[in-house]
Amino acid sequence: MNTLLTGFIILSIVIAFIAFGFALWLYFWVKRQPTSNEKIISIAELIRQGANTFLRKEYTILAKFAGAAALLIFIFLPKPLWIGDFWANVLTNLQMVIAYISGTVFSAVAGKIGIQVATMANSRTAEAAQKGIRLSFLNGFRGGSVMGMAVVGTSLLGIALLFLIFDQNSTLLLGFSFGASSLALFAKAGGGIFTKTADISADLVGKVELGIPEDDPRNPAVIADNVGDNVGDVAGMGADLFDSHVASLAAALVMGVALDKLLGTNNVAMIFCYAALGLLASILGIGFAKMGKNDNPTNALNTSTYLTTAIFAALTAAATIIFKFEWRMYFAAILGLGVGVIIGIATDYFTDDRKKPVQTVAEASESGPAITIISGVSYGFLSVLPAMIGIAISALGAYMLCAPLGTNASDQVVYGMFGISVAAVGMLSIVGMIISNDAYGPIVDNARGLAEMGNLGEEVVEITDKLDSAGNTVKAVTKGFAISAAGLTVISLLGAFLSEVNAAALERGIPGITNFDILNPKVFFGLLIGAAVPAVFSAMLMLGVTRNAERMVAEIHRQFNDIPGLKEGLPGVEPEYDKCITIATTGALKELIPAGLFAILMTIAVGMIGGVYAIGGYLTGNIVSGLILALFMSNSGGLWDNGKKYVEAGHHGGKGSNAHKAAVVGDTVGDPFKDTAGPSINTQITVVSLVASLLAVIFLTWSLF
Amino acid sequence: MNTLLTGFIILSIVIAFIAFGFALWLYFWVKRQPTSNEKIISIAELIRQGANTFLRKEYTILAKFAGAAALLIFIFLPKPLWIGDFWANVLTNLQMVIAYISGTVFSAVAGKIGIQVATMANSRTAEAAQKGIRLSFLNGFRGGSVMGMAVVGTSLLGIALLFLIFDQNSTLLLGFSFGASSLALFAKAGGGIFTKTADISADLVGKVELGIPEDDPRNPAVIADNVGDNVGDVAGMGADLFDSHVASLAAALVMGVALDKLLGTNNVAMIFCYAALGLLASILGIGFAKMGKNDNPTNALNTSTYLTTAIFAALTAAATIIFKFEWRMYFAAILGLGVGVIIGIATDYFTDDRKKPVQTVAEASESGPAITIISGVSYGFLSVLPAMIGIAISALGAYMLCAPLGTNASDQVVYGMFGISVAAVGMLSIVGMIISNDAYGPIVDNARGLAEMGNLGEEVVEITDKLDSAGNTVKAVTKGFAISAAGLTVISLLGAFLSEVNAAALERGIPGITNFDILNPKVFFGLLIGAAVPAVFSAMLMLGVTRNAERMVAEIHRQFNDIPGLKEGLPGVEPEYDKCITIATTGALKELIPAGLFAILMTIAVGMIGGVYAIGGYLTGNIVSGLILALFMSNSGGLWDNGKKYVEAGHHGGKGSNAHKAAVVGDTVGDPFKDTAGPSINTQITVVSLVASLLAVIFLTWSLF
Repeated sequence: MNTLLTGFIILSIVIAFIAFGFALWLYFWVKRQPTSNEKIISIAELIRQGANTFLRKEYTILAKFAGAAALLIFIFLPKPLWIGDFWANVLTNLQMVIAYISGTVFSAVAGKIGIQVATMANSRTAEAAQKGIRLSFLNGFRGGSVMGMAVVGTSLLGIALLFLIFDQNSTLLLGFSFGASSLALFAKAGGGIFTKTADISADLVGKVELGIPEDDPRNPAVIADNVGDNVGDVAGMGADLFDSHVASLAAALVMGVALDKLLGTNNVAMIFCYAALGLLASILGIGFAKMGKNDNPTNALNTSTYLTTAIFAALTAAATIIFKFEWRMYFAAILGLGVGVIIGIATDYFTDDRKKPVQTVAEASESGPAITIISGVSYGFLSVLPAMIGIAISALGAYMLCAPLGTNASDQVVYGMFGISVAAVGMLSIVGMIISNDAYGPIVDNARGLAEMGNLGEEVVEITDKLDSAGNTVKAVTKGFAISAAGLTVISLLGAFLSEVNAAALERGIPGITNFDILNPKVFFGLLIGAAVPAVFSAMLMLGVTRNAERMVAEIHRQFNDIPGLKEGLPGVEPEYDKCITIATTGALKELIPAGLFAILMTIAVGMIGGVYAIGGYLTGNIVSGLILALFMSNSGGLWDNGKKYVEAGHHGGKGSNAHKAAVVGDTVGDPFKDTAGPSINTQITVVSLVASLLAVIFLTWSLF
Repeated sequence: MNTLLTGFIILSIVIAFIAFGFALWLYFWVKRQPTSNEKIISIAELIRQGANTFLRKEYTILAKFAGAAALLIFIFLPKPLWIGDFWANVLTNLQMVIAYISGTVFSAVAGKIGIQVATMANSRTAEAAQKGIRLSFLNGFRGGSVMGMAVVGTSLLGIALLFLIFDQNSTLLLGFSFGASSLALFAKAGGGIFTKTADISADLVGKVELGIPEDDPRNPAVIADNVGDNVGDVAGMGADLFDSHVASLAAALVMGVALDKLLGTNNVAMIFCYAALGLLASILGIGFAKMGKNDNPTNALNTSTYLTTAIFAALTAAATIIFKFEWRMYFAAILGLGVGVIIGIATDYFTDDRKKPVQTVAEASESGPAITIISGVSYGFLSVLPAMIGIAISALGAYMLCAPLGTNASDQVVYGMFGISVAAVGMLSIVGMIISNDAYGPIVDNARGLAEMGNLGEEVVEITDKLDSAGNTVKAVTKGFAISAAGLTVISLLGAFLSEVNAAALERGIPGITNFDILNPKVFFGLLIGAAVPAVFSAMLMLGVTRNAERMVAEIHRQFNDIPGLKEGLPGVEPEYDKCITIATTGALKELIPAGLFAILMTIAVGMIGGVYAIGGYLTGNIVSGLILALFMSNSGGLWDNGKKYVEAGHHGGKGSNAHKAAVVGDTVGDPFKDTAGPSINTQITVVSLVASLLAVIFLTWSLF
């Protein structure tokens, strides 16, 4: 390993620790903030316990799943134990097991930290609102930033350590990445089912049937609902972006190692340098974040994102000059980042209540719920266009920028694919900032509920409402960003898959592959089936939500019937909150498993039937249809949510009007779209891509056709 | 041209004329059936006039569009006039113009005939119901069969004549096919917007606001609604399947001509033979169709479909023996047909009210409209899987069957792609029968309305209801069939595109292309953008429906306010039906044009930027995401429709219950899904594929990258 590379790996580790230190400082800052309202303290404690119950169950089931996966990895990956030297295989497969387990554990730890802080910051944000919006904002944002720092710090640390300890073995990184994906599948899809089960059930019985307000403490599902915000949006989203960040680095490093070995270049060092500087830029961006005098929280969040972007661009430019990295690579990274930000802004157009789509849907609600749904679905479909064009341009642009670095045709292909992975690394460089913005959302959402339940008064609730609304706007932007980043990452994972196949083919003296030709019927076969998988996967999750919500609605009905005085809100009468939390937890994890297994088993089936060519098509179909569906569902969901808020703000008849009733239907439909199925597709795509890469050897040697 | 080929072309022409003769016999049979109820006669007359108004306006606008397209074709296609010998180019381009115009005219004539008969059969079906279900069924079915015979007869006749007159010039067939596609775009998408504008507006004001029954003559939109069934489901669907049938033959003939020239084989003769026998099988199947003693119309329709399939299989097997065609080709055709039928049956599972999906959604409606929508969307997503797997298997299977006919690697690819096109021809061979079944639907739907408006009594309405319900079930099956057939056809059009590109490259002495490699960034660029197009296209159509429905709702309100005695139903007071028809017509054609232009201009933009490679990816992305969205929207729409009917049959509280209200919301959302956007995507895919093939030369020589 050369000095430059060693230096940057160590730099990565150092910056990861700086991020941990900063997270610790933020943590204690939040912890120092006062809480005094007993009602709020006790409810916040219930939320914290509920979230921990979910995490404990989730991690227990995950441990079993990961144990089984680790056993299979040990037997088969990267090489079946019985082929060749048995003891050598034991050793290499054991390394893969370690990488895989580390991936799950690192991500789990980051998720646990995030939940810990978020469930502490919510009550402090609520109480701080009594002293004004600026302090309240800082509580929410700094609470979220702990998650941001923890996720990106552990991700970078894990990759750097593995790379250092196992001497640049890039295949192991795919194992680490697969571990992170396994966890993300549970956290994002499981958390997504949990949060929407609780949300829908609470609304159906509370708001629709009984007409009691949102966050009313009489509602047995109200704590589960608040827990859901944390497990879905904090832990789930964190695991999802951990997964994307790791996958983008893994894909770039797999190709970078191959390039460096072949041509003696410094690409791996550059990747570590850029990743480390991205984290540093996020630390600075978070450090400078605060609300200005104009008191607009959305601007504060956006300003710090743009600041982070600018810092990253400047730092990496300096590094490129000093260490003589290729400028073409630099521009590929900046292209990726720039397109990511533009996609975020374009996505915002479709969910911003000052723009036409939300207003049109709100107006359409006057004609009843059916028109709300039709117009929302339509705008959701329209919203895929800017993101797809953006991803297409950044992939083509990055390829075109970097391909000329190769001196012959085959090197140019490798450089071009590597360029795409650099663009993905660039897009994900500011992920620390993105996660901080995103985790801010559920904290202030919780704070709003706590302010209401703790009777802090209308003015305070209004402040938290304002913070919450900013959270929703920013969430739409970051979600568009996250989906696009995942898209670009999995495109570069296609390149990693090709690398793995050809390395294995070379080793076995059989012909490798040079292309995935669409006219090859195996490729087309895979393409068609791969495209169906995200649709089926998201259907299974959504049906899981409705089934689980049925169970919870029954439980809520039971409590209102069986507990005397609950409906009337007699003092001292409390619902059994924990029963609802248990239903949400057990159901979520039960409903998620068939969906996850379906995606994985389809991949294996297609690979065993059509071999590596079919898998090339399968991954492509999966990416393309996954992106379309994820963008559609996330954006239409966000649009309906804001459409409802727009009506509630007094337009088209305001609260209680027919338009409002229709808008509520839209919002409820959008819930599992935007918080369960849509974002889980990200994870599904990554999981499938990694399964394919890891099993490349098996598909190469054992397929039917 | 050899004798065998000439013989089969003449056979095709003869069988086309037999079909016309049979259609004429059916026409007069229907015409002979008595009508006596004056109310019914006058309303049927209004419907007929309304449908003709729409057709006239549609054909007028189409004529302008086709005129502009013909001019562009004359200047640019197949060769820009100024390149090479000007007068020779004038001659060849003029041929292309003739082919294109013929495609639009042939399809328009078939559509006009279909509308003529359907608007005559509806009243006769209604009155025949007074004499029993069997006669009523025959009226509906034979009326629909006229359309089936007219469509397939003109399609086969047009292809055969062009091929004969212009001496096997297969590129001209693409022009003919493009003409058919242009018309289908107007007829299907325009008709789809018309029908759903009227349907939704009539329901929103009539059923939801005023609580008057469906098909109440007081409702000013009621005639427009019935007209919509005819222009959307008869003319639109006929044009759509005309388009698919022509495209499948064109793709197969383009490749077949290339093969025959190269290897002296008889593939073109075989294609004509199979197509002619398919039409003959449909004639026999229709001739034998009648209701058995058990009085179940669904069985009668299905039995004649299976009978047609069996006759086709037997006739083509005999032809294969006698004329020594390749058995591998025969099995490819049968594979395509078999998979088509299986996909139809699998699709039926998701829309049949005796199966789990419809019943689950109906039950979910008890929890309100949001859950109806979420579960319907979920099952819609699930329903794409069997069709996608079916298409994947038939494409891979047909390729694998036929590739071994080639003696070297490159011939094997050509044979393999040709095999896929033979599978598509096989799948579409029984399309005459499919159209007959499909056109039966709107006739009996109309009949139901007429029976109600003509006060024929409860028992008669019940009979027409039973026929209508069979129409809905069969429609779901044929829709799955139609989408899959279009999918397989456009896959084979990819092969035709490659043929065109390479022929042009050869002529110009520049290198052709051998593959569309997914790892080629231009291909991937096209893939991502192509995948977004069907989503945007369908969004534009659906937004067109909602905008147009707003206009019509306003008009209905105006009439109820301004016409004294209308609301109360005073005798002699009639609404101004024609105003609603004009709104639906003008709006539909206005809203459709941007959507169509968007799809065409995106194709040209991608081709001009990324050249033929980008187009290869673009078409693939378009097909894959188009199939997913078309299947999802068609099936969830059908599911909601039947879910509502299931509740109305007395389940979960029956009519007027909360579950019913929720189910009505689902049905209304499903309307533009299943009758506007979903099936129009078929046409969009074909149009885009043909534009790409026709402009292949331009993309090859003039692209940016």
